[in-house]
Amino acid sequence: MSGTEIEKLVKLIAKLPSLGTRSARRITLQLLKKREALLLPLIQSLTDVAENIKTCEICGNYDTQTPCSICSSETRDGSIICVVQDVADLWAMERVSFFKGKYHILGGVLSALDGITAEDLNIDSLENRLAQGTVTEIILALPATVDGQITSHYLLSRFKKYSVKISTLAQGIPMGGELDYMDEGTIQLALNSRKFL
Amino acid sequence: MSGTEIEKLVKLIAKLPSLGTRSARRITLQLLKKREALLLPLIQSLTDVAENIKTCEICGNYDTQTPCSICSSETRDGSIICVVQDVADLWAMERVSFFKGKYHILGGVLSALDGITAEDLNIDSLENRLAQGTVTEIILALPATVDGQITSHYLLSRFKKYSVKISTLAQGIPMGGELDYMDEGTIQLALNSRKFL
Repeated sequence: MSGTEIEKLVKLIAKLPSLGTRSARRITLQLLKKREALLLPLIQSLTDVAENIKTCEICGNYDTQTPCSICSSETRDGSIICVVQDVADLWAMERVSFFKGKYHILGGVLSALDGITAEDLNIDSLENRLAQGTVTEIILALPATVDGQITSHYLLSRFKKYSVKISTLAQGIPMGGELDYMDEGTIQLALNSRKFL
Repeated sequence: MSGTEIEKLVKLIAKLPSLGTRSARRITLQLLKKREALLLPLIQSLTDVAENIKTCEICGNYDTQTPCSICSSETRDGSIICVVQDVADLWAMERVSFFKGKYHILGGVLSALDGITAEDLNIDSLENRLAQGTVTEIILALPATVDGQITSHYLLSRFKKYSVKISTLAQGIPMGGELDYMDEGTIQLALNSRKFL
């Protein structure tokens, strides 16, 4: 592969999630082939993002403004905060466009294995929002993993002193899910949380 | 997903080969998270490539110079030209570092289905190189597909008038290949081209 510029770009692209050297090479070639249609617009778009996108000082969301458009929205209910692990989860929630409250992005979950403690997460800033007294409900929409559940428990015990309702997302069989394809844990969970009609 | 800049970037990244909207979202988030380590270097590297990489006027390779470093190399044998479909194939050949001749990139293969004719490929420029009389051998390293073979046959009949040896890459069982996993076509080919020891 001649041209150190090209090699450098391949190496950088290969660092992106879900990509390896092979796909990085294909992407680089595609960019070189479609200079006007792809390479130049991509540079422009990345530059726009680098220059304009900020982290919201309240919730941790990415937006062109801080506070972000959700935090500064008049039509969204500021008394309900949905706590998510990551901006990707906020995006997933927003795609449903069902939740009309505000968000708080933890930036991860507690993990003994990865050495992630409460200080590494945006928990203090969440507590500050609760301390202001306008929040009445928190929905913990953290991942349904052991670390996610530990984090939920930690937040529950830490925020008990505030007069807020705390809930987590329901767990069970997903929509369209067939029992045959579900793991034992999910079936047990769905049985335990069965709803009487 | 708030911020039209972000949405625009996700859409652009999703256009790259082997990526969809889902992985484009993950990549965008990773870029936003690692602004200094990933986003800014990527912009710089893409800009470098856009500004410095040219298409070689002789062989069609990408390089910072034209003629490219291979075409202008004194140590490589200009009398042998390896004809490949794409720059990716040139890179693959160069990774082996066995071939010490020069290259010619066709930019595709003939395809009745995709409406690709000889005029769409860099065949005239290849003929010009042959007409200069210094080339004594052409290796057709085109894909082992029907279109690739048709292209090889076309080039063979078109270049018959020049006094050059024309060969194609050997076909058969790949290194480490087990018969059990080979398709019938490959086995038949390997049988037909069997080597007597």
